[in-house]
Amino acid sequence: MLSEFDLIAQYFTRPARDTRRIALGVGDDCALIAPSPGTQLAVSTDMLVEGRHFFPDADPFQLGHKCLAVNLSDLAAMGARPLGFTLALALPDSRAEWLAPFSQGLLALADLHGCALIGGDTTKGPRNICITVFGEVAPGQALRRDRAQAGDDIWISGTLGEARLALAGYRNELALDAAALQAAGQRMHAPTPRVALGLALCGLAHAAIDISDGLVGDLGHVLKRSQVGATLDADALPIGPMLSLQPQDLRRRFALAGGDDYELCFTAPPSRRAEVLDAARAAGTAVTRVGRIDAAPGLRLVDGNGVPLRLQLSSFDHFASS
Amino acid sequence: MLSEFDLIAQYFTRPARDTRRIALGVGDDCALIAPSPGTQLAVSTDMLVEGRHFFPDADPFQLGHKCLAVNLSDLAAMGARPLGFTLALALPDSRAEWLAPFSQGLLALADLHGCALIGGDTTKGPRNICITVFGEVAPGQALRRDRAQAGDDIWISGTLGEARLALAGYRNELALDAAALQAAGQRMHAPTPRVALGLALCGLAHAAIDISDGLVGDLGHVLKRSQVGATLDADALPIGPMLSLQPQDLRRRFALAGGDDYELCFTAPPSRRAEVLDAARAAGTAVTRVGRIDAAPGLRLVDGNGVPLRLQLSSFDHFASS
Repeated sequence: MLSEFDLIAQYFTRPARDTRRIALGVGDDCALIAPSPGTQLAVSTDMLVEGRHFFPDADPFQLGHKCLAVNLSDLAAMGARPLGFTLALALPDSRAEWLAPFSQGLLALADLHGCALIGGDTTKGPRNICITVFGEVAPGQALRRDRAQAGDDIWISGTLGEARLALAGYRNELALDAAALQAAGQRMHAPTPRVALGLALCGLAHAAIDISDGLVGDLGHVLKRSQVGATLDADALPIGPMLSLQPQDLRRRFALAGGDDYELCFTAPPSRRAEVLDAARAAGTAVTRVGRIDAAPGLRLVDGNGVPLRLQLSSFDHFASS
Repeated sequence: MLSEFDLIAQYFTRPARDTRRIALGVGDDCALIAPSPGTQLAVSTDMLVEGRHFFPDADPFQLGHKCLAVNLSDLAAMGARPLGFTLALALPDSRAEWLAPFSQGLLALADLHGCALIGGDTTKGPRNICITVFGEVAPGQALRRDRAQAGDDIWISGTLGEARLALAGYRNELALDAAALQAAGQRMHAPTPRVALGLALCGLAHAAIDISDGLVGDLGHVLKRSQVGATLDADALPIGPMLSLQPQDLRRRFALAGGDDYELCFTAPPSRRAEVLDAARAAGTAVTRVGRIDAAPGLRLVDGNGVPLRLQLSSFDHFASS
């Protein structure tokens, strides 16, 4: 069995690629980041636990991708440019069959975003993956949750609900054919962090959040912190191709409260619609307008004709249910 | 049972105290750090797993202290000034009897060092505590592992071996009376990060590391990365008062390879001995000279008369043993 130091050396240590920003990488008591002069450092951390966030038999390459993707998604929601990340890893063993593909999936996505692995910790224990990611953003430019304004459009990147569709398939809540499960499963296992879109929205969007626990719950955080309300058009929600084959009620539920989407929900003034669409095009990510921010508190769901909808939705809460 | 958001709000959210450096704290997709102009950011992460790093019945107040202390110790070993930290927490449940004292122990130490809790993640799972800590350091001033020079003195802060003594007591490897176990247990449960000493050594020490896995193992990292060797005087090692009552062989083993000490081991040129002692006095931390860095590779142990010693020591490795 590999020792802790062999493991780090073999799978997770590479020469630093951007010595301008990463003054010291893996191997000392601390890493040293040298942010660009005048920038702020955006920091986010996510912990993924086996049996809760991923299945024990999850494909390790995809899992490596996903662990970093969910963190990069937080940077995207802030409009921050990725710099680097730390990786803390509890593992029941140090088998190469798991570690090699895990590190490959992780580092492939890291390379794609120029996000260097700068430090970490490994220990024995129930499998748990904790990543803390760092990005830089110009002061005053970060896309915060508390800046939505009444009258803003509400936009969503990509499509919603197919990670939840895949989960329903795995749990046999729904009968999905193999092709549908495969396609929806990709959305669950290999989310795409909308980093380029987040960067393109700086100075354009008022507020942003990434959708990890379901649109209704996550938009709710924006509303609460911005002290505003919203009206959402359930028929305008961008639905993935596999979910669009399902009945309307299921489409709405999974798109509104499915979770694990890792799309951006952001608000911007109607006067800047054309610029939002240009930014999305430049970032290579579709965006859809799904509602508006209201001065009156509360979240109102309507259909395409403006008729109010009543849906019982519960956002994902790690401690509310067991 | 508390929801995830209630839990964060109740135990871990407080108004930011240093709005100059922490531009945005808990509650958005990312926190925002605004480092002092011209400084580098030191980053370290540590993961503590129940059953491996702490007992299931560990006192939660002390555990909160220790989780942050081991991270602050990494900043200390780098000579960095603490700014803030993120906390990712997997818990089997959200009982107030555990969370209240845990957060109190954690935040009391954070306040002592002006280190703000700026973000985090909570989830259900086997108990696992992952902290990532941030500090700032002037470019070129960080105390690195790879800068020890032949001829340097080797210094140790505080005393060694009593955390290991406590472990021996808990494991019934040794018969310790209640007072000794209590005193040694304090060293294990409530280590003191040597932050002020680390700051005082900037520009004075050549290299530093914190002793978490035992002196021999951790000094070994310094030697390897600095491409030097060392001679250690086993009779010069600073031994805690409870360990000093034990036989010589045990004193040496626990001081050399006990682990969980969280003292600093650093090297500095003999020409600066008086300054090192002044820095230690100013920081309120005793330091002891225990050996010297040699040009020849390898670690040589000698007694107080310079007679070579042969001790079989094994440093702690999280994956080498199970």
